[in-house]
Amino acid sequence: MANKSVPDIVVGRLPLYLRVLEQMASANREVTSSQELGDRLGISPAQIRKDLSQFGEFGKQGTGYNVSFLAEQLQSILNVHRIWDMFLVGVGDLGRAIADYGEFVDRGFRITGVYDSDPKKIGKSVGRFTIRDAAKLESDIRKEGIQVIMLAVPAAAAQDVADRVVKSGVIAVLCYAPTSISVPSKVHVQYIDPVLHLQHMTYYMA
Amino acid sequence: MANKSVPDIVVGRLPLYLRVLEQMASANREVTSSQELGDRLGISPAQIRKDLSQFGEFGKQGTGYNVSFLAEQLQSILNVHRIWDMFLVGVGDLGRAIADYGEFVDRGFRITGVYDSDPKKIGKSVGRFTIRDAAKLESDIRKEGIQVIMLAVPAAAAQDVADRVVKSGVIAVLCYAPTSISVPSKVHVQYIDPVLHLQHMTYYMA
Repeated sequence: MANKSVPDIVVGRLPLYLRVLEQMASANREVTSSQELGDRLGISPAQIRKDLSQFGEFGKQGTGYNVSFLAEQLQSILNVHRIWDMFLVGVGDLGRAIADYGEFVDRGFRITGVYDSDPKKIGKSVGRFTIRDAAKLESDIRKEGIQVIMLAVPAAAAQDVADRVVKSGVIAVLCYAPTSISVPSKVHVQYIDPVLHLQHMTYYMA
Repeated sequence: MANKSVPDIVVGRLPLYLRVLEQMASANREVTSSQELGDRLGISPAQIRKDLSQFGEFGKQGTGYNVSFLAEQLQSILNVHRIWDMFLVGVGDLGRAIADYGEFVDRGFRITGVYDSDPKKIGKSVGRFTIRDAAKLESDIRKEGIQVIMLAVPAAAAQDVADRVVKSGVIAVLCYAPTSISVPSKVHVQYIDPVLHLQHMTYYMA
């Protein structure tokens, strides 16, 4: 379904649309409008209509969008009408919070392995996982066909771990380490660093 | 320094540039190039030159960028040549990890208060903080002149807390709750939800 001509900034808004539609579906809402979506998201209704129109005709003038139908279409466009197995690497405070995060499975993702290199942590529990030895990352990634990794290691270790997992077949890295990592162009990286988001906002707060 | 004509997607890249420049400065690097920045960030050198040129002339053809000078300029553009005091609301697993996060202060931010509404948590310690009663949020925000909030409360509580803090003067909300919040247009919101970032990547992974 991916359309190469769609700007990445539009792609980045689709998960926001899907999240609010799934919340509406949970509340048994059947129909919504670009106006209501816009109010909930702080995005103009015209922008929402324009974004969605890049992928097809999902609503009818005057009758709005069918919530479940649009949610299913977005799941399909974002390739989350299936479940992606993921490994989490790094069990510090943040890794613990991620391992316990309950929001993955209903939205297309599932943690199937948690890794650390600290001998004191290996074999211990975190949430419903037993922490595995990070030395086994490469072989486990190949064995389990893992394509998605969440990296919650210290900044100094991030590049080394990224190199290892990418060589083993990973093509998507969600990087919580507060540093940039360098990967081949076929590999996708997204960063979660609260300071990046805070600085983005303070730009507008002179 | 904010320039209204600069696209928001360009603004969003500036913190990435600043982060890598600060890492170079820590390593006593004096000069860099758009080529090297591009390699570190996975962004084309031409894009980096174009982004930076929207704010001025920071480098010389053939001699590259002075690392410290460019970092200082970006700090000034992003308004983090000063420190922003922040409150953190919500002390679950994630709130604990945020309270312990050591990367804020050198990059323009400082947590000065941590809040929860659970009587069993109020008065207890988290990191170097004593958890305060969330009922005091409004008065403390006004008293301490807080403009930036990190929201790590459950999804169901996010909108109510957002309404309260915005009424008290907050104009930037970093929302970790996995839900969208609706705020007046003058208020900035950024979301940290790993699933949003994961779905952004799986779009490209048909």
